[in-house]
Amino acid sequence: MMDGQQLGAQAVVADSEVRGKAKRARATATAMAALTTEQKNKALLHLADALLMQQQSIVDANGEDLRRGRENGTSASLLDRLALNQQRIAGIAEGLRQIAALPDPVGDVLDTFDRPNGLRITKRRVPLGVIGIIYEARPNVTVDAAGLCLKTGNPVVLRGGSAALSSNRRIVQVLHEAMAQTALPPDALQLIEDADRASASEMMKLNGLLDVIIPRGGAALIRTVVEHASVPVIETGAGICHTYVDAGADPEMAAEIALNAKVQRPSVCNAMETLIVHRAYAERHLAALAARLREAGVELRGDEGAAALLDAVVPATDSDYATEYSDYILNIRVVADMDEALRHIARYGTMHSECIVTEDAARAERFLQQVDAAAVYHNASTRFTDGFEFGYGAEIGISTQKLHARGPMGLPALTSTKYEIRGTGQIRP
Amino acid sequence: MMDGQQLGAQAVVADSEVRGKAKRARATATAMAALTTEQKNKALLHLADALLMQQQSIVDANGEDLRRGRENGTSASLLDRLALNQQRIAGIAEGLRQIAALPDPVGDVLDTFDRPNGLRITKRRVPLGVIGIIYEARPNVTVDAAGLCLKTGNPVVLRGGSAALSSNRRIVQVLHEAMAQTALPPDALQLIEDADRASASEMMKLNGLLDVIIPRGGAALIRTVVEHASVPVIETGAGICHTYVDAGADPEMAAEIALNAKVQRPSVCNAMETLIVHRAYAERHLAALAARLREAGVELRGDEGAAALLDAVVPATDSDYATEYSDYILNIRVVADMDEALRHIARYGTMHSECIVTEDAARAERFLQQVDAAAVYHNASTRFTDGFEFGYGAEIGISTQKLHARGPMGLPALTSTKYEIRGTGQIRP
Repeated sequence: MMDGQQLGAQAVVADSEVRGKAKRARATATAMAALTTEQKNKALLHLADALLMQQQSIVDANGEDLRRGRENGTSASLLDRLALNQQRIAGIAEGLRQIAALPDPVGDVLDTFDRPNGLRITKRRVPLGVIGIIYEARPNVTVDAAGLCLKTGNPVVLRGGSAALSSNRRIVQVLHEAMAQTALPPDALQLIEDADRASASEMMKLNGLLDVIIPRGGAALIRTVVEHASVPVIETGAGICHTYVDAGADPEMAAEIALNAKVQRPSVCNAMETLIVHRAYAERHLAALAARLREAGVELRGDEGAAALLDAVVPATDSDYATEYSDYILNIRVVADMDEALRHIARYGTMHSECIVTEDAARAERFLQQVDAAAVYHNASTRFTDGFEFGYGAEIGISTQKLHARGPMGLPALTSTKYEIRGTGQIRP
Repeated sequence: MMDGQQLGAQAVVADSEVRGKAKRARATATAMAALTTEQKNKALLHLADALLMQQQSIVDANGEDLRRGRENGTSASLLDRLALNQQRIAGIAEGLRQIAALPDPVGDVLDTFDRPNGLRITKRRVPLGVIGIIYEARPNVTVDAAGLCLKTGNPVVLRGGSAALSSNRRIVQVLHEAMAQTALPPDALQLIEDADRASASEMMKLNGLLDVIIPRGGAALIRTVVEHASVPVIETGAGICHTYVDAGADPEMAAEIALNAKVQRPSVCNAMETLIVHRAYAERHLAALAARLREAGVELRGDEGAAALLDAVVPATDSDYATEYSDYILNIRVVADMDEALRHIARYGTMHSECIVTEDAARAERFLQQVDAAAVYHNASTRFTDGFEFGYGAEIGISTQKLHARGPMGLPALTSTKYEIRGTGQIRP
């Protein structure tokens, strides 16, 4: 009776797009949690096929976004991230197949034990719930995030950048039509089409409808979500990563690791932004290393120690050390000892990936123990912090927070747990 | 040089109490993470001794709080929660001893594996970081939370209710003096003495200094922290728990479980707030069960189905179903089938503890699978959701969110992980 009145009253005020779609996603949560691994995998393979079958219509819709982008003066690099073609769609579909091939963590029993009173307690992995993803104009993320969430039995609400709206709309249409032929309820995948600031803000406050929000994108997007969300957030991707070359480093190894960390792909979060060099190493080898970095197209900024050893180094400011360049720019800092390097990393690092190059095992262990980051390397490039490189398969992101998940987040990061307690009438004395 | 200037500039503007103390706590994080289990356990036992040695001064300080509370017209139940005496201090000290006796999760290797390129990856438990606790006027929480955080190598910033300030100040003084004689840096334990709203709000925004905030207290406190914090929060303790008595329940077992869930300790979060009864059971047994509940002092509210079977039942409103009474009040709802019970729980439950009483194994399994809560019971009282009852020892709280930890949070919930990657010069091709 009360319920009836309440529901009646709610029906009068129409839900916003965000709230309405989040509710529809949530309504599928119980059914999604009950799906078998086989049902989910079969459905993901079917979605991959559907994307390939409908690729021309997706490329066409993407063309509208690209045209609008060019008219609005969007930069070439953003247009490149936005663009889809036959080859990229094939890659996206292959990503879904790889997700289907990964082990399904849902249902796994993590622990089971009997209490003296006869209660049997089982701790089981369950889906995380309804996941909100807020991202930028990258239509590949639409499929990738949907695949990871659906594989783990989580309904998902996607809110991509408005510049990719035509692409996202067509992709989700294709996926919805394909889902309707599988065990996956189409409502488990929702796309927010009203991609303005207000829709993102509304998502951030949807406690009770969304269980978590994962922002995927640049530092500004992530900061906004962290600051404004009351829904729990997993912070991902901001990477101010350092390589510390110790006094006892092998010079050739140090140079190879530093070059790789900076130039193999400067735009990604696990690339190096500041090279920290022990003075003893710097005096003998920094000039040669700097020459190789410059040959590779890297602009060098540096502290006084670096400037004393190198020509034409732009002075690095405090704000340079705190910037994720994601570009062919590198700060170089010369330190008197490892403690100075540790202090620099603690101050400017984003707890993503940090590296020491040294032949001294004791100093390496001290660095591994004392640096507070998701991934700490001894004698290897920070570029390995990545779900594929760790052998986890596809990843939803790289967590730079300490709660819930840290580092590359594979499928288990998209699960929670539930205690099932089986009794025979036990009561608490 | 830049650093010097920056630090100089910072020194001019004095930090607020909250920021200054959080910085001092953070400055101990590296040292705290490096402590051995033996050092921490020895220190905790020494803190327990110090509390006993200094108990008279603590009781005296507590007397000031109690006197002020009485003058301000504080309720008897709040005064009881605030009060310390010799026996309670002995219990608090014993709590520290129990924490010392628990296994230390820090340093545990959770996984280690070699990649084809020769990288060895080790996933290790590390402290969570600097933990903020915002709580009410319960001085026992001061010691309890400090003990759990310090045992796991986490510096902690405590912000208790102002009504307990004299007690908390004296307790922390005693602990600081004792810590100075151990391996624990006294700065790892900070008490915010300015216990007004502004200090709590400031804590909630201290991203970069605090890694997590755990609110401990009533629903209003928890809601405020969840809504306003940009620091990650672990939501704890709100418990609107249900017991569903199925058609096929054993009547005596159902009555015992329902009574225990309601009256064994109504003030706690795992107590039952609404009893949901299948119509077939209700028609035969609800009157007898209601009589026993009333005998135990429980006021009954109910829906139309309950009112039809019982005398003098106050009609339960929608807001009653959404209230954590923590008192001798119970809603009773009669349902036509289990699905109606599941819908009620999904709508009003706080994902804490839910129970089905039934002799039908298939229905029990369906309930265990479909109810989305931290702890789901078959034929046992919800009162068992508790770290001690689960065999985990002391707990920092019961998480009702799905991220990071769910259900009773023992020591592992106060840790994060770090990947240590050991290489021999690997770079990414």
